[in-house]
Order: sequence, then structure tokens, then C-alpha cells
Amino acid sequence: MASHLLHALAGDPETAALLSDAAELAAMLRVEGALALACAEAGLVAPEAAEAVARVCAGFAPDWDALAAGLARDGVVVPELVAQLRRAVGPDFARAVHLGATSQDVVDTGLVLRLGAMLPLLDGRLVRLEAGFATLAARFGRTALMAHTRMQQALPITAGDKIAAWAGPLPRHRARLAGLAPRLLVLQLGGAVGTRDFYGDKAEAVAAALARRLELGLAPSWHSQRDTIGELGAVLALVAGTLGKFGQDVALLAQNEVGALRVAGGGGSSAMAHKSNPVKAEVLVALARQAAGLSGTLQQALVHENERSGAAWTLEWLTLPPLLLACGASLRLAEALLEQISFVDG
Amino acid sequence: MASHLLHALAGDPETAALLSDAAELAAMLRVEGALALACAEAGLVAPEAAEAVARVCAGFAPDWDALAAGLARDGVVVPELVAQLRRAVGPDFARAVHLGATSQDVVDTGLVLRLGAMLPLLDGRLVRLEAGFATLAARFGRTALMAHTRMQQALPITAGDKIAAWAGPLPRHRARLAGLAPRLLVLQLGGAVGTRDFYGDKAEAVAAALARRLELGLAPSWHSQRDTIGELGAVLALVAGTLGKFGQDVALLAQNEVGALRVAGGGGSSAMAHKSNPVKAEVLVALARQAAGLSGTLQQALVHENERSGAAWTLEWLTLPPLLLACGASLRLAEALLEQISFVDG
Amino acid sequence: MASHLLHALAGDPETAALLSDAAELAAMLRVEGALALACAEAGLVAPEAAEAVARVCAGFAPDWDALAAGLARDGVVVPELVAQLRRAVGPDFARAVHLGATSQDVVDTGLVLRLGAMLPLLDGRLVRLEAGFATLAARFGRTALMAHTRMQQALPITAGDKIAAWAGPLPRHRARLAGLAPRLLVLQLGGAVGTRDFYGDKAEAVAAALARRLELGLAPSWHSQRDTIGELGAVLALVAGTLGKFGQDVALLAQNEVGALRVAGGGGSSAMAHKSNPVKAEVLVALARQAAGLSGTLQQALVHENERSGAAWTLEWLTLPPLLLACGASLRLAEALLEQISFVDG
Amino acid sequence: MASHLLHALAGDPETAALLSDAAELAAMLRVEGALALACAEAGLVAPEAAEAVARVCAGFAPDWDALAAGLARDGVVVPELVAQLRRAVGPDFARAVHLGATSQDVVDTGLVLRLGAMLPLLDGRLVRLEAGFATLAARFGRTALMAHTRMQQALPITAGDKIAAWAGPLPRHRARLAGLAPRLLVLQLGGAVGTRDFYGDKAEAVAAALARRLELGLAPSWHSQRDTIGELGAVLALVAGTLGKFGQDVALLAQNEVGALRVAGGGGSSAMAHKSNPVKAEVLVALARQAAGLSGTLQQALVHENERSGAAWTLEWLTLPPLLLACGASLRLAEALLEQISFVDG
Repeated sequence: MASHLLHALAGDPETAALLSDAAELAAMLRVEGALALACAEAGLVAPEAAEAVARVCAGFAPDWDALAAGLARDGVVVPELVAQLRRAVGPDFARAVHLGATSQDVVDTGLVLRLGAMLPLLDGRLVRLEAGFATLAARFGRTALMAHTRMQQALPITAGDKIAAWAGPLPRHRARLAGLAPRLLVLQLGGAVGTRDFYGDKAEAVAAALARRLELGLAPSWHSQRDTIGELGAVLALVAGTLGKFGQDVALLAQNEVGALRVAGGGGSSAMAHKSNPVKAEVLVALARQAAGLSGTLQQALVHENERSGAAWTLEWLTLPPLLLACGASLRLAEALLEQISFVDG
Repeated sequence: MASHLLHALAGDPETAALLSDAAELAAMLRVEGALALACAEAGLVAPEAAEAVARVCAGFAPDWDALAAGLARDGVVVPELVAQLRRAVGPDFARAVHLGATSQDVVDTGLVLRLGAMLPLLDGRLVRLEAGFATLAARFGRTALMAHTRMQQALPITAGDKIAAWAGPLPRHRARLAGLAPRLLVLQLGGAVGTRDFYGDKAEAVAAALARRLELGLAPSWHSQRDTIGELGAVLALVAGTLGKFGQDVALLAQNEVGALRVAGGGGSSAMAHKSNPVKAEVLVALARQAAGLSGTLQQALVHENERSGAAWTLEWLTLPPLLLACGASLRLAEALLEQISFVDG
Repeated sequence: MASHLLHALAGDPETAALLSDAAELAAMLRVEGALALACAEAGLVAPEAAEAVARVCAGFAPDWDALAAGLARDGVVVPELVAQLRRAVGPDFARAVHLGATSQDVVDTGLVLRLGAMLPLLDGRLVRLEAGFATLAARFGRTALMAHTRMQQALPITAGDKIAAWAGPLPRHRARLAGLAPRLLVLQLGGAVGTRDFYGDKAEAVAAALARRLELGLAPSWHSQRDTIGELGAVLALVAGTLGKFGQDVALLAQNEVGALRVAGGGGSSAMAHKSNPVKAEVLVALARQAAGLSGTLQQALVHENERSGAAWTLEWLTLPPLLLACGASLRLAEALLEQISFVDG
Repeated sequence: MASHLLHALAGDPETAALLSDAAELAAMLRVEGALALACAEAGLVAPEAAEAVARVCAGFAPDWDALAAGLARDGVVVPELVAQLRRAVGPDFARAVHLGATSQDVVDTGLVLRLGAMLPLLDGRLVRLEAGFATLAARFGRTALMAHTRMQQALPITAGDKIAAWAGPLPRHRARLAGLAPRLLVLQLGGAVGTRDFYGDKAEAVAAALARRLELGLAPSWHSQRDTIGELGAVLALVAGTLGKFGQDVALLAQNEVGALRVAGGGGSSAMAHKSNPVKAEVLVALARQAAGLSGTLQQALVHENERSGAAWTLEWLTLPPLLLACGASLRLAEALLEQISFVDG
């Protein structure tokens, strides 16, 4: 989100860092550097050329304004980035830059590299959240609680039952992320039209070397197959949805008339000094609904025309980052909310 | 969809059969019958009572109008169904009907039973589709084809490259369904508030016996944890999205000016006798977009308040069936489209 | 929705009647009949031919199975319908059937005719709902009520304040429908490619006569401009959203712990005899969320390729009917809920 | 969007300026200043106190970090802003700050003030776009063009027919904005719970004076009635959808094989020097689909619980700004694309 203020409420610094222009550039430079070295391994490029490219990529400070202009003109930032890199490398080694690759290879593999950092971040937070719920259950598990079905009092349960319902999906989410990772965290290398034709009989060697250097799985070019991106979006929305249910329940239980749960450090009001608002719980609900909507829109991008759809690809760029942010923020806020709540004996 | 006409275009009879009122009733009756027998196994019900209930459930013809009225009144059909069953069983054994269970147990487990039939149906069609693409590749794999990126001619590829991109996601979809199945195809048994309290120290025994009888996995009550439903919806949309890309590509390649692909038996026009429209390809795109939207809406239902949310649950009922239908229809139409297309040598 | 059971809970018979295959056929026949007469007025068809066509259309019983097969084959039902009509009219007058028109003219104008019945139905219900809220305010307006902001008690208001918030959007919705009607309720007549070329210098005369006979506004062909359909969908979702807020508030106020509002005739539970569930209130929330999702998906259909997009048009067919139904059902349920609720003095 | 790079492709500086934290703060300060003066007019505040408040608001430089922390804590930025303002005004006049108002009054009225600048911006661009299409029609209107229905060649039309279809919705969009403005551009003043109770018998006087000073319409408090926000979102998506259809058509017509239209200054490729990609056309499609999705999600926020829903309100904050940006960017890109295209005689 563009608003720094709103980011304080509903953002997440760690996720935002992975989504920054700087992080994207760094990932793309890592791909370009590794590609030159992989091409050298396969004998397509002289080792000194590859090392020159890798050296330039390692510490490259781009002309950001020109990158922005290039993106606006070409629909993708890579042509301008490659031009800058070639100038920096110098005419002797320029050919070794971006050899046989296309923009999508660099952007998509760069995305995958950052997702390779995002998945453990999410998993780590899910683990901490599981521990947090366990701690809450240890403290309050036996506290009596009235269950509610269809917004009406049902029968007594315990806070432990409630906490178990909140925490129940977390191991499933971790299993989803674990199942998704080998499908998602794979190299994209296809060249102009996805066939790696440029590399001739060295194609598999280049791809294997590049995947190894980037610590990614090896797979055929998937440039026009966006199901793994859509699947990631769905899992992000499922996580946010689970935490939205947690937030909704907290807000319901913390109603003054119900009073089954207390939220410490609730938000203040500009008009009513007595208010203590369950702000984080409410934001969890908002993020769940935002994520659900974004997930549906991201899946529209599976209808990816031919060998590369500028329309569908741009739609991913507009949709996946806020979805990652919504999920990251949900996890951040759920952890913080866990610190605030205590069950109240009825 | 309510329209029989539209169903002929964009529906799927096999999926529709699993979603019919009759199929839902049959699944719920199977649950009620097996529950009585499971309670008997656990010693909570006399065997003859359980057998009487099972017998009634096996051949029960309900008062449909009363079921509809009950659903409209209670928000769920089970209270009226149970009342009808108890009358049919007679006063001596009436207590053995629906013992310790709640409506959601019957509806959700009944849904899972039908999904247990749906998943193999989907998987079987994915397998057939993989075979269909393989056959197409065997026939046309070497046909030269111009690749298109960003809606412009790129470089030559082969039809085999194109077909590989269409078929590439299919094994991943099968892996998703396989990964989802053990999470999704599990018993829901919770009783009034999800704790199985009614059964006392026989709770695990009843649940285990019921799961065994229904050939479902055993799991704690998940009545308010809807992530597996949301995950199913996402996978359905991913499948439809992949096939929407196939349809979009076919429509683009079959343009008269491109002429890279011929669609036999295209649709006619009421105004232009020369037209041969790639109808199935277009419907695949429509279904992909419908499914993407429904998937996002279904994930809104994860914000499920407390121990049972009438609002969120009803939203699932309004959203999951058309999503299952969209995915089923996509697979049906993709198979049919495969029969129609042939690549044309350039 | 295909399920008759679910329709009893979340459907609406009056809306469903307008969406039935029979109603669609009747509307299309009305268009075909009026078109023949309009062509006769313009001198393009002999009067006796036009009258023969009109007579056949007036009482036509189609071969429904052939219509369904035609729709599946052609992607639109009109080619087969026209073929059936021409056979019924006989060879002498067959040319006078569907003269100069294309499928989309008949389907879209047929839709507009049914929407011309739907808008007053919606408006009439909004009027009744305004009256219902006024009656509720007359009975309970002065009852004290605690306001809640951010799910916490705020300061006292009255039931009248609450009812005013529920009813406030209704006149705006009526204004939206009134503003939309002249844009939406217009003839679609374009012929094969939207230019009315077939009719030559009689084009305006045919269009004007047809619009007059169908009591629709006259407008240039809008076959590929779907903004009025998208706008209708948005208004439907706005109405459902307003009523979803009403339902959500009722469910919150009727919580046992809050007890500010009583819902008579609440739904029963199969497990807990003491429950009285605010079923209609919950379904209003579900319908609002379904409608919001469908509205977003319908707007995807504005990206309508070239002179007719089979994909985008089919997406409308899959999305607009359930959206109309959701809005109709919302209004039906809101009226019924109004009869059930009474505020309780604190 | 947080990415400056992406903003260069798919953003809009003028819209972004209205959505910036600075613009939001300026609007809120304008509300607070005018409120003090309105209270003075109504005799609730001493004129010198009101003028002191207005003076402080006119040139206020907040502690941004504290505002961000306040927003994160309270869920809304106003309590912290009011505290800062009261300190700046000093103890004698502190009471005159934010008198009788609540956070939502300031945030929502501040939003409306910015929307009051956005609507003419949109309208002005729609006017320019109409003129641009008229110019294009003047140049190319008679150029022959093949129409396409269902992705197949239909019959010849002219470029003028095509341009008319692109431009046809624009006056309707302007009518929608004009119809919406008086509903949307109204004061929100309700105080703690929407009743303006604090002001006693001066309530109408304060509201009228505040509306007059802010040049907004006068209306009852609408804090929990979000239909006008949802309606705005829908119109934004309708505009973006129309332009998405324009972009889709341009991309289809500019296909090399079709060649009916040339896009000057197309985007370059990092792999294929011969490419000239219709980047702006593709981004228009992406923005249309993003906007459609966001519009559906925004309508979820109509289910606004009780007198203020933190969840639903936050969801608006997460959804409306990117939707405004998508619409603004669509209009910017459509204007730019118009400059690039020329029809080609067949």
C-alpha cells in the first residue's frame, strides 16, 4: 500500500521488504549474475566474461528513473535493466549479459527467489502462532465459555475448545505451504518463447546449472502456466481467512455484553473516553476479506494468452504483492493479538 | 444453474447429479444410518434400534415439501429430516435417530461423502485429458507454429511446445487433489457445539466407528474451520483456469487471420452462414472467470463466527455448488474440444 | 440455483420466474414477432408474412431438447430457435423470420424485456420495505438502544436511530434504479455486426418501430458495450449489501447477551431445543456477500472482445441470473424479517 | 501501490496525489478547522477559539511517526491527530478542537473532500477521451475494417463503427458520475454514535454551517450506510472495464496477422529485437480486471456492523484507494494509447 500511515495499521515490514523495488532488483541481478556463470559452465560464455557480469550484478546501482521509464515503455523492466548492465559490463563482455534469456525468465525467477524467502517467513510465523495458541490454552484452557451457534447461545464449552478451533487449521496451512514449495520454487528459464532454443544442446546444462546456483528446483519452462502462482495466492488467502475467523471471534467474545474475553491495550476513540476497541481483531477480519477478494482476482490471471500475456502478467503484479502483504500482516497482527487477550471466567 | 438450457452449454450432468437434492438427501441418510449403527457399536443404542434406523434410512422417501419448508424455517434441513425419520422409525426407536449429533454433522459429512465421489471423478477426467493432450501431441507435435508473446508474433515453436504448456499443469492439479483429499475427506462429528460431549467417554469410539462405516478419515470436529472447503474451491478454480487458458489459446489460434488451428464442428450463427465459432473454447474462458470469482467469494466464508455461522455456512451453499459445476463443465468441455481441434501446417 | 431445497431458503419465486427458460423463450419470441411486424412497417416484409410470423411466435411451443442441443452447439440458442420458427411459419414466409437480426439482438433485447419487469418488481419491494421500516419506527422508534462502534458499547441511541440507518439507503437505491432504467431498458438491434446494415436506409425505421412495439427506449446498437449490464449488477449488489447490513445488525442485536431485539419464529436446531436462530438475518448476510462477489465477476465481462465475445457474454449468463436472484431473495427475506422483529426495552 | 517502478507502468500521479498521506491529512485538517468555525457560528465555541483552531489547522505539521503509531493503536488516526492539535492550540482553546465530532466524521468527510476533487478529474479525462475518440474517428472513420464476432471474422464494418463502440459508454459514465455526485459529496457529521446529540438544538446549525464551509451537500449522518462508497467503486470499475475493452480490442487488432491497427512506440523485448508490444493496451486489460475484482471486494464492506465497523471500514481503506488508482491509471493510459494508434487500410 502506498500510504505509510495505513501500513502502520495493516501492513507488515518484513513482507514489505521482500516486495520492495530494491528487493526485486536484487533478485533480478542475482538471476542475471548466476545466468552468466551458468552459461560459462556450459561453455557458452568465456569464464572471464561471466565473472565480469557476475561482478557487475553483485554491486549494481541502477539508474532508477530510467528503469521506471523503461518499464512504462516496454511493459517490463528487464530490457532497460539489461541495457544498463551491458553498458556497465562494457562492450567486450556485453554479450554475456542475459544470454539466451527473456524478460520473463528474469522477472519470474526473481519473484520465485523472493517467494523462497517468503515461505519460510510464513512458516515460521505459523509455528510461532501455534506456540502462542498452545500457551493461551495452557493458561485458559479450562475456563468455561458459552458456545454460540448461529449467533445464539448454544451450550457450554471451554476456552480450550475455542482455542483448538482457532489453531486447528495451522498445521494444515503448513502442510499446504510444504506441498506447494516444490511446485513453486523452481527456475523459470525459457528464452524468447519458452523453449530454451537459444542454448541448443546446452539447454539442459544451462538450466541445471542456473537452478543449482540459485538453489531452486529444476523444471521445464512454466512461463505461461500460472497455476503455482494462483495456488500460492489461494494459500495466502486461506491463512488470512483462518486468522480472520480468529479476529471475528475475538471481537464477538470481547463485546461488553458477552465479556468472555478481554483485549488489553484496545484502541481509543476520539469521542468516547471509555472505549477500548479490539482494533487488531477487526483488522484481521478486514485482511481476510481483502485477501479472499485478491485471491479470486489473481486466479483470473490463469487465463494467460499464448506464450506470454502482458495483460495477465501485469494483473499478477497488481494482485500478488498486496495479497502477500495481507497474509504477512495477518500473521503479524494475530501474534500481537494473542499477547493482548485473556479469557474471563464467566 | 436453474436454466436447463444453459446447463446444456455450460453444465455437466455427472457433477450436477452429485449436487442434486436427491444426492444430498441420500448422503445425509447414509450418515444418519451409519451413525445409529456406530452408536450401537459403542453401546449407546440397542442393536435392534440401530438396525431399524438404518433400515428406514436405506429406503427413505421424505416429504420434500416439508423438507423445503423446514429448511426455510430453520436455515438447515436436518431438524425437519430428523423429525420425519423419527416418525418413520416409530416411538420405540426414535431416540436412536441422530443421537448426539447436530445438523452440521449431517450436512457437512454428507457433503464430504459427495466430495469423496467428486474427487475421483475430477481426477479421472484429468487423466483422460492428459491422455488426450498426449494423443494430440503424437499427431501434431512437430507441426510448426508461431509463438506469440504480448499478443505479437515472437519466434517459431512447434505445436508440441504449445500442447506441453496446456498439459503442464495437469499433473500438478492431480497432486493438489491428492494432497487435499486426506484433509478434506474426513468425518465431521461434533454434536451441538463441536465437542462430542453427548457421547461422554464413548465419543472416540462413536467417531471412529462412524468414520470407518462411511470410509472417511477420522479427525477432530472441524465444523467452524472451513479451510479445507476453501482449499477445494481454490483447486477447482485452478483447474478451470488452466482450461480457460487452453480455451483462450484455441480461440486465438483459430482466428481466421491466424489459422494455426482448426476447430471442427464450430457453432453456427443466425446471421452469418459462413461462421464456425469456437464455442467450447469460449465457454472454457467464461467458466475459468466464473470459477475464479466464485473461489474468491467462497474464501470469504472462512470468516466463520464462533461455533457455527449461519451466514458463512449459507454462503458456502450458494458458492461451492456452482464452483464444482464450473470445474466439472470445464473438464467436460476441454475433453470435447480436444476432439475438435487440429493444427494446421503454416 | 439448481437445488429446489436451497431455493426455499435463499431463492425468490418471482425473480426465478423471470429467469426461467420459459420466460426467456417468451421474451425472445416477443422480439421475433415484433421484429417481423416492424420490418413490415418499414416495407421490408409483406404484412401477411409479418402477421404469420407474429402469430406463430405468439403461441410457439418449441422443441426444447433441440433448443438445448442447439445452444450447446452454437453457443447461443437463437440459430436453432429461428430454424424451428421458420419451419413453423412455412417456406413462403420463412424469410420474414429474424430478418436482418442476429442472435445477440434477440437474446439481449429479450433480456432487457425481462429486466423491464424486474426493475419495477425491485422498486415495488423497496417501497414496501421503506413502509415496513416506517411501521417499525412508529412502533419502536423511541425504544432506548445502546449503540455499538467497533463491536463495543458506545452511547445510547434509540431504535429509531437504528431503523433510520437501515432505511437510509433505500431511497438512494430507488434513485439508482430510476437513473439506470433509461440506459438499460433500450432496444438492442444491430444485425450481424452491430451496424443494422441489412436494413439499408430503413434501419432507423425498423429500430424505431421495434422499440415502440416492445415499449423500450431507442438506442444505437450496444452489443459490445456491456456497461449497463455491469451497472445493473452493481446496483443489485448494493441493495443486497444494504440488506446484509440489516441482517448483520439484527443477528448482533438478537444475541442472547445483548437482547436488544427479539426475532419471532426463529429457526430450530436438531441438537438444542432451546435455540431460536435468526435464520433470515443470517441468510441476508450470505446473500450480500454472494452478490458482492458476483457483481465483481460480472464486471469482468466488460472486457468484451471486438463485436461479440462468446466468452464475456457467456460469463454474463453465468453471473447475472444468480445476482438477480440474490437481490430478489434479499428483498423477500428483508420484508419477512421485518415482520419477525421487535425491539426490547433495555 | 508501494512499488515506484510499478507505478510508472500502471499508476497515475494525479490520482496518487489525492490518495497520499499528505492529502488525507490536509483534508482532515480542513474538516477540523471548518468544524471549529461552524461551532462558533452556532454559538458553541468562542470565535477567538475557533479562529485559533482554524489557524493551527491551516498550517499544521504533524508528528507523522506518532500519527502512524496512533493509527496502529486506535485503528484510526484521528485520536492522535486531535491530541496533537489540542497541544498545538494550547489549553485555553483545546476544547474547541474536534468538538462533538468523532473520528469517522473527520475521516469520512476528509475522504469526501478528496473525492470532490477526484470526480471532476475523472470527468475531465472522460471529456478529453471523448474528444480523442472523435479525433480518431475524423481521421480513420471511413477506413474499412473486418468485424469479428466470437473471435471469428464476421462482416466488414468501418473503423468508425469500432470507435463508436469504444466511445459509446463514455457519456453514460459521465452521467453516472453526475448522478452519483449529489449522493456522495455530502457531509458526514454524526458525533460518537451518529446522532449529533452533542450539539443539542444546534445540531442542524452546526451541520449546515460545516457543509457550507466545506462546499459539500448536507445530509443526515451516513456513517454506517456505505452504499455511496460502493456505488463509486462500481462506477470506477465500469470506467476501467470500458477502457479494458478498448485495450483488448487494440491488442487483437494489432496482432501481426490481423494488422488492422498499428501501435506506434510499442514496447521492446529483451529477447526479440523485432517486437513492438501493445503495452498500454495490455495494461488497460489488467487494470479493468483488477478494478472489477476490487469493486466486488469493496461491496463486501456494505455489511457494516452496527454504528461503526472497524472491520468493514478498514476493508474500504484497503480497497478503495487501489480502485481509484486503477481507474485513474486507465484513463491516463487510454489517452496515451489514443495517441499511439492508427488504423491500417486493409
